[in-house]
Order: sequence, then structure tokens, then C-alpha cells
Amino acid sequence: MRTLVTGGAGFLGSHLCERLLAAGHEVICLDNLKSGRRENIAHLLARPDFQFLVHDITQPIFIEGPIDYVLHMASLASPKDYLQEPIHTLKVGSWGTHHTLGLAKAKGATVLLASSSEVYGDPEVNPQPESYWGRVNPVGPRSVYDESKRYTEAIGVAYHRVHGLRVRIARIFNTYGPRMRLEDGRVLPMFMTQALRGEPLTIYGDGSQTRSLCYVSDLIEGLWRLLVAPGTEALIVNLGNPEEVTIRELAQEVLEVAGSRSPLSFLPLPEDDPKIRRPDIRRAQQVLGWKPLVSRAEGLRRVLPYFQEAIRR
Amino acid sequence: MRTLVTGGAGFLGSHLCERLLAAGHEVICLDNLKSGRRENIAHLLARPDFQFLVHDITQPIFIEGPIDYVLHMASLASPKDYLQEPIHTLKVGSWGTHHTLGLAKAKGATVLLASSSEVYGDPEVNPQPESYWGRVNPVGPRSVYDESKRYTEAIGVAYHRVHGLRVRIARIFNTYGPRMRLEDGRVLPMFMTQALRGEPLTIYGDGSQTRSLCYVSDLIEGLWRLLVAPGTEALIVNLGNPEEVTIRELAQEVLEVAGSRSPLSFLPLPEDDPKIRRPDIRRAQQVLGWKPLVSRAEGLRRVLPYFQEAIRR
Repeated sequence: MRTLVTGGAGFLGSHLCERLLAAGHEVICLDNLKSGRRENIAHLLARPDFQFLVHDITQPIFIEGPIDYVLHMASLASPKDYLQEPIHTLKVGSWGTHHTLGLAKAKGATVLLASSSEVYGDPEVNPQPESYWGRVNPVGPRSVYDESKRYTEAIGVAYHRVHGLRVRIARIFNTYGPRMRLEDGRVLPMFMTQALRGEPLTIYGDGSQTRSLCYVSDLIEGLWRLLVAPGTEALIVNLGNPEEVTIRELAQEVLEVAGSRSPLSFLPLPEDDPKIRRPDIRRAQQVLGWKPLVSRAEGLRRVLPYFQEAIRR
Repeated sequence: MRTLVTGGAGFLGSHLCERLLAAGHEVICLDNLKSGRRENIAHLLARPDFQFLVHDITQPIFIEGPIDYVLHMASLASPKDYLQEPIHTLKVGSWGTHHTLGLAKAKGATVLLASSSEVYGDPEVNPQPESYWGRVNPVGPRSVYDESKRYTEAIGVAYHRVHGLRVRIARIFNTYGPRMRLEDGRVLPMFMTQALRGEPLTIYGDGSQTRSLCYVSDLIEGLWRLLVAPGTEALIVNLGNPEEVTIRELAQEVLEVAGSRSPLSFLPLPEDDPKIRRPDIRRAQQVLGWKPLVSRAEGLRRVLPYFQEAIRR
């Protein structure tokens, strides 16, 4: 099997490359290194079954030879990044996805598109099943990401309907693990960095908003199962950990695992910040036989050494 | 003033070109003639202040000389059309809008983007104010149009925020008038054609779903006022007629104005068809001093001769 991964040097992309290689795939990794990092895949570069191309997916791609699977993981994904580069973020979702789907169509490959729990916006139902249509402000500051992902889904199912392409869409909920960037603005790297440096932990709002955090090994297993699942129907599946935690509880858990005595510091809630977010994973359980196995307590312990090492660099 | 209109040979586009010319603008009309028609602008072609270019807006555009206003009206807009060409519809919303905004940025022009009441999807509130975030199925059959327009809005406000571009977004509700295509699948041309030919009028579902129909002269006046409104803020405004009518009542009104005795014929409701749709036009009234002036009775009388002529061709 020969498999292309866009955004393959990113947090999730690089773990996926490893998983694909472990399964015997030959991997072509594309990344423009905007939020992806060469060090995430440095240990793979010498392998004969791994090829790395610096490429911006908003530009057309031509790859020689057969390709069996395409995973479109490329995107600025943290609010801090996509608010700094809103237009590029929108281009990756539209032009990048068009290019990815066009390549997959030319090669007869199965495509997995990385979508996001952000398609649900600020939801009125909790947990969110795949059948929920979402509540997204199309002209709010976060719409550059949310609408980009909704567009990605729309074009994905359109390629399936028009060209019969095998399309899988993963609605990825918050995930954490080694290789997250310290400065990407997400809550866990921020808490970890602040806790390990003895700085105050920044909480937006009163901290009663919840998140559901999935450990990266669980998420990668879900993506893998979705990719290789049998069937030709378009599959749209939530992947995430339904164990919900308030931001305030999470701060306490991070302080504990890091052995930190940092205080908490409260700032105003950003516009359109989702108050709740939790996956209904019944479809993933039924169709993929998948559910998360790593508890948050275990995941935080596993990821701690990465952050301890990362803040020393 | 020199003004570019994409989709300028379409139903709304061609009426807009006339209005701009009447206001003394020099008009450059772009159209790929996919759903637009040369005959809509044939009477303008000899004018020195009117230029027509056959161009597909999914391809980059370069125009020499200054441009003051850009109106992005291009899109397959009837469900029948966009369901036949879903991928092209999505490309017009993303690539087409990027190209339009890029040109406007290069020229320092004010942009008006044609959005749609479809960004509200199948709404939970009636009428729909601009602050309503909508209820759209991102992977339903209609999502190719709905998500295309939501993406259009997102990239529009992103260009405003990043580049300071003067951006106006018109959420256009159902509009009718001369130059609608008989075969475009919308309810009024369908009813008119069927009534004038003595064929049964096709009603989807039980006909209790409502629509709000705006006569084209009112809509064009609203677009014009939005285009030239002072201010640099991004303006997002509903344009439509809030007078609501059930499909069944509309059928009766058409039969009456056409003097037809056609019976009614009932078919199942298509998937994701909106049940209600009615604009809250308070913002347009406040900001633009605009409201529709043509009643439905008057509008149906005015448009009748066009359909009588059109079915003879």
C-alpha cells in the first residue's frame, strides 16, 4: 500500500505516518511546515519507505505512481494560528481539499478528510451525534476554521456522490499528546507549560466550560480503522473521548500531575468560544469497533515527559 | 465609476448591470454563460459603457485599469442546477470568491458578495434576522450550495478583517421577475409555465411550506443601496420580501393571474427542503432605508407577460 498524508509533519499527521509505516504502508508525507515541524518526522527521513515533500496543499499536487490511500490532515488547527492566518486557513479547506480529492480521484484512492468538532460550533445538544447539523456563526472570528471544515465535508461528499470516490470524514475532537506545540494556544500545552514553569494557569471565563480530551494513540487508532473500514459509502464519524472535564478541573489535574503550585488566572472568554463540546461516539463504536482506551489520568502522565523536555529546549 | 459584475448575464446580474448603467457606471460584465444567457444582456452589448467578457470566475481574473465596485453575483443558484453541478458550485463559492476578492483588493474596490437565505438552512426561527447562525446540514445534498455561500461569507469577512477591504454581503431571499429561466426548477417559473401550458402545477409535500418572494426591481434597489452605502464596516444584510405565502396559496395566485384552470399535482418533499423562510428586514430598513414596494399581486401581474412570451419561444 502506498499512502499520501497531507500535513504529515504536524502533530496528528506525524503520528499517523508512524502508524501507517508500522502497518507496512509506503508513506509520502506532504507538509508546508507552517505549523508542522521537521523534527516530528526527522526520525523517519532515513527510511526507504518514507518520503517527505515540502509542499503547500493550496498548490496543485502531482505524484507519480499508484496511491491507495490519501489522508488530508493539513490545516492550521489551533485558534491562535488560524486567527493569524484566516485567509490561508480558508484556502487549505477549499483549494487544499479540492487538490487532495482530485489526486485521489485520479489514483482511485480512498480518501480520509480530517474534519473537526468545530463543525458543530457552539452546540445546543450534548453530546453531539454525527446527525447534529451544528450551530456555527458564518461571519464570526472563528468562522474561518469552522466554515473551512464544513466546506471540506461538503466537497468531500460531493466527490463521493459525483465521482463515486471512497470518502471518509473524521470529525476530530480535542486531542493531546507528544508533539503538540507549546505555543499553539490550546488549553493543554498552555496549562502544561505554565504549570511546569511555575506561571499562573490562564483560564478564559470562569472555567466552567467543558472539553473532552482524547489521547493521541486512541485518536490515531480511530483514524486508522476509519481509513481501512470496508464499504463504499461516505462515512462520517466522530472521533474523540467522551469523558468531559471542565477547564477548571483540567487545570487542577495538570497542576497535580506536574507537581506544580501555580495559581489560576482568569481572563475574559473569547467571542464564540464553545461552552460545551463532547463527542457521541456510538457510530465509531458500531462501525469501527472503536473507543478510547487511555483515561485522562493516564494520558496526562504519558504526555508529561514530552512537555518537561519541550520547555527545556 | 467603473464596476465589475460577475454573473452579469444571469437573472439578477443582468438587471444589476442595467441599474448600474442607469446610475452612470461603466460596467464590465463577466459570465461563463452556464446559467446566464447572452440574450439577457444583448440589448446592452452595443453601448460604449458596457463590456462583456465570457469568463469562468473559478479561473483567475485580470482586468486593466481602475475598478471602483465589484459585485460577485456568479453562482449556480437554483437547486436543479447546483445539484447537477455540485463540484463546480462549490468551486465558484471558494475559488470564484477568492478571485473576486483578490481583484477588489488589488484595485481598492468595494465588494458586494451575493449570499443567500440558504445560509440559514432549515431555520428554527421565523423570520430570520442576520444574527441567526442558521441550521444547515453540512453533508446533505443541498450543502454544496449552502456551504458554498457560508464559505463565501467567511472569506468575505476575513478579507475585510485582514486587508481592510470594504465588504458588503447580501443575503438574498427568493426573488422573481423577467429573465428567470423557465426550466430552472424554482417554484414560480415552474408554476407559471405549468399554468400557462394548462399542465398540472407540481407541489412538493402538502404545499404548507412557505416562501417569501421579492420582486426583482425591489431586490435590485436593495443591492444598489447596499453597494453604495457609506461606511467601512463589513455589512451583512438580508434582502427579500417578508410577505409570506404557502406554496399552495401561491399556486392559486398564479392560476388566477394566468387565467388558468390547471389542477394541482402533489409529489414528495425533497430531502432538507426548508419548511419556512422569511427575511427579517429591519437591518435593511435601518441601514439602507430600504423595503420592498411591489406587492405579490402586483409583481405577478408585472411578470406575467414575460412568461407568456417565454413559453412561446
